[in-house]
Amino acid sequence: MAEPILTPQAEDFPKWYQDVVAKAEMADNGPVRGTMVIRPYGYAIWERIQSAVDSRIKAAGAKNVYFPLFIPESYLKREAEHVEGFSPELAIVTVAGGEELAEPIVVRPTSETVFGEYMAKWVQSHRDLPLLLNQWANVVRWEMRPRLFLRTTEFLWQEGHCAHASYEDASAYATKIHLEVYNDFLEKVLAVPTYVGIKPKSERFAGAINSMSCEAMMKDGKALQMATSHELGTNFAKAFNISFQNESGVSELCHTTSWGISTRTIGGLIMAHGDDKGLVVPPIVAPIQVVVMAVRDDESVHQACRDLVARLLEVGIRAELDIATGSFGRRATDWEIKGVPLRIELGPRDLANGEVTVARRDTNEKAQVPLTTTVAHAQILLEDMQRLLYSAAVSHRDNNTHDVSTIEEAITAAQTGFARLAWETVDGAGEAALKKEAITVRCLQRRDGSMPLSDQESDLVAIVAKSY
Amino acid sequence: MAEPILTPQAEDFPKWYQDVVAKAEMADNGPVRGTMVIRPYGYAIWERIQSAVDSRIKAAGAKNVYFPLFIPESYLKREAEHVEGFSPELAIVTVAGGEELAEPIVVRPTSETVFGEYMAKWVQSHRDLPLLLNQWANVVRWEMRPRLFLRTTEFLWQEGHCAHASYEDASAYATKIHLEVYNDFLEKVLAVPTYVGIKPKSERFAGAINSMSCEAMMKDGKALQMATSHELGTNFAKAFNISFQNESGVSELCHTTSWGISTRTIGGLIMAHGDDKGLVVPPIVAPIQVVVMAVRDDESVHQACRDLVARLLEVGIRAELDIATGSFGRRATDWEIKGVPLRIELGPRDLANGEVTVARRDTNEKAQVPLTTTVAHAQILLEDMQRLLYSAAVSHRDNNTHDVSTIEEAITAAQTGFARLAWETVDGAGEAALKKEAITVRCLQRRDGSMPLSDQESDLVAIVAKSY
Repeated sequence: MAEPILTPQAEDFPKWYQDVVAKAEMADNGPVRGTMVIRPYGYAIWERIQSAVDSRIKAAGAKNVYFPLFIPESYLKREAEHVEGFSPELAIVTVAGGEELAEPIVVRPTSETVFGEYMAKWVQSHRDLPLLLNQWANVVRWEMRPRLFLRTTEFLWQEGHCAHASYEDASAYATKIHLEVYNDFLEKVLAVPTYVGIKPKSERFAGAINSMSCEAMMKDGKALQMATSHELGTNFAKAFNISFQNESGVSELCHTTSWGISTRTIGGLIMAHGDDKGLVVPPIVAPIQVVVMAVRDDESVHQACRDLVARLLEVGIRAELDIATGSFGRRATDWEIKGVPLRIELGPRDLANGEVTVARRDTNEKAQVPLTTTVAHAQILLEDMQRLLYSAAVSHRDNNTHDVSTIEEAITAAQTGFARLAWETVDGAGEAALKKEAITVRCLQRRDGSMPLSDQESDLVAIVAKSY
Repeated sequence: MAEPILTPQAEDFPKWYQDVVAKAEMADNGPVRGTMVIRPYGYAIWERIQSAVDSRIKAAGAKNVYFPLFIPESYLKREAEHVEGFSPELAIVTVAGGEELAEPIVVRPTSETVFGEYMAKWVQSHRDLPLLLNQWANVVRWEMRPRLFLRTTEFLWQEGHCAHASYEDASAYATKIHLEVYNDFLEKVLAVPTYVGIKPKSERFAGAINSMSCEAMMKDGKALQMATSHELGTNFAKAFNISFQNESGVSELCHTTSWGISTRTIGGLIMAHGDDKGLVVPPIVAPIQVVVMAVRDDESVHQACRDLVARLLEVGIRAELDIATGSFGRRATDWEIKGVPLRIELGPRDLANGEVTVARRDTNEKAQVPLTTTVAHAQILLEDMQRLLYSAAVSHRDNNTHDVSTIEEAITAAQTGFARLAWETVDGAGEAALKKEAITVRCLQRRDGSMPLSDQESDLVAIVAKSY
């Protein structure tokens, strides 16, 4: 048997991840420590993620803007917790235009401060609220232990920034974004189920009064935070004087929020669905949904492949033609590594029989299908695969989430999956004991799995796990 | 008569520009010198520009990627002309993660160098060529005389970077991008005609052997460079060792190109079509194509407006409802400043008569139109306006381009428009004499207006003008 191209997951999961990112041509390390070059195949997935998230953000009523990359250092210092949280990760420009700068400039690690400054200018009256803004941008957080997509010094994301007239409005809108934009996208597009909950105080965003999170389970049982939404209370409104005249003409502070999802989700996609043969890309987010491969270098076969690709494209399936010469086995393996949902193989004998071989990437099943009904068959399989990937991920998550009663049991469970236990058991000393084992509280939920409004609610459960 | 809201163009064109960018809520100055906050209305235009350019780039076969913002300073130094050209404009990160960096990091002013480094890794054989890449990104060039959209320290753009096997292939593809992507987009989407030509040596991109440009005439007769495509020859291939084995197995250097279009085009759009009432946005790129305004605060009027908006949206017209209270005149003026192509006004009397008033932003014509045929009427007017804006811009450009024979005549002509004269008259001392009057050679063309392959062709003409 040939040497496996990828390190098997069971042997060394992080090495498998590194192999698959390289071999599927998703990304490369950049020249500056922790930076990333996103290659065409990886970027095509990001474009589909952007489009799915952006349309949901617009449907929720937020408008896109673009704020500068460069933030005066003094802005960050206006919110004490914020600057404390981000200081160690900052990249700082001290020289520009050939001169030493009087005030150093921070390369944005996130943009609450600069949005705050302009919100204060734009918001005067209650009629200007809510102010619902979003931007797609790059941000920089100096990373000591970089890993492609998961932790990079520079990453791409969207960051929403909103101002509201009341705590209730702010909380309701942040929750809406969290459930109707992020979680909906994660479930329906990436086929990744999550636990939706709030962070304990120790894990909150620097400057927030509440942070919501979507936590997904990877194939190795570890957690990945896929999206977060933060209620900032009046912390940034105070620091930047974001205030409005209410209907009685009295000045009040705004309640602000911020929320983001990043290129990290690509890492989540890889680790939630991938297997020992490579990526498995859910059809909705797949840049190539079907590859049509000529089994032989033969013009009538090539023509039949081209015709089939044209028919697939016609119904909106993202199909690609592969009539390359070279080892058929090697070509098929390359498409497997890239996680293309369906591989349709067509050779002279198939053509003579009026059929094709259809191979599913998820189940590895192969079937002979009449050439005449191949397009309809492909449509059905793609829909089926999207559903199946999601339900398989739900089973994996549920089977590896263990209800436990003690910190000791939680530590054991977290070696292979998630542990769920009463928050009162964890809060305080428990959290510290878990941290020693590199286990953190991923989120807090109500007993019924719904998201609490704050960590002050009684009878909450904590989901704890090792994480990326 | 009320004070005009905007400075009239004839009085002070740069002040008019500044006013309209602010009053139409397109953009604000950022906190760091020369940076820019792009507001929702401005960003919505940019999204439409991106989408029109991106689809053309993809049709031309290039694939999107993302390269890091941070480039090691040493990379820039590998191409001598390149580093010389960009050094004065660089922003440099010297501190990151709380420590002084061993090697300073440059915030990318453009990405030829870092693309070069990876192209060298990815290209091995002639089979890997052409390598056609593009990225949408922010870049930073420290700006001493910033002006929103036109010259900003940070701007948004796409930058294409390609490697080819021969000079001919590289030149042909860069030309294709220049004509079929950029010029086609400028004419068909922005309705901005240009002079397409090549730059004289003095105006070339730092490191290029040839730079192509699309030069548009603004309403004040000055030029704006709207897009550029550069042939880099083997300069970057030498510096980064981008080479390939040809079909005979011999190693050869690649011929590379780069090409870009930026948020500067928004400034061009404003200055090519705007008038004393504000922006005039061509329908294809307009975020809002039709605004339906209730003349009275009356529920049956509101309902009729809502119905009309729904009917417009149904046929794909980007329609917006305005049933705000407050002065109708002021609301109409605000939509004029924003340059919305069509304003449909509906009051109780119109409703009783089964008609609406349709006001065109370009000609300021108003007409009564039956409510039943309003949608079809709007479609016709939008198409007409797109055509008319383009032909008006062509007339403006042609009427203000003067064929002259001497440098003195060129200087006179360039006070109000462009001058066209023999390149041999300009080349050398002429170019220096023009520069003293702040006039530059915008591009070189053949006598028939087509684009030469190089400035070594005989019988070329120079288009000279003052410029932004």
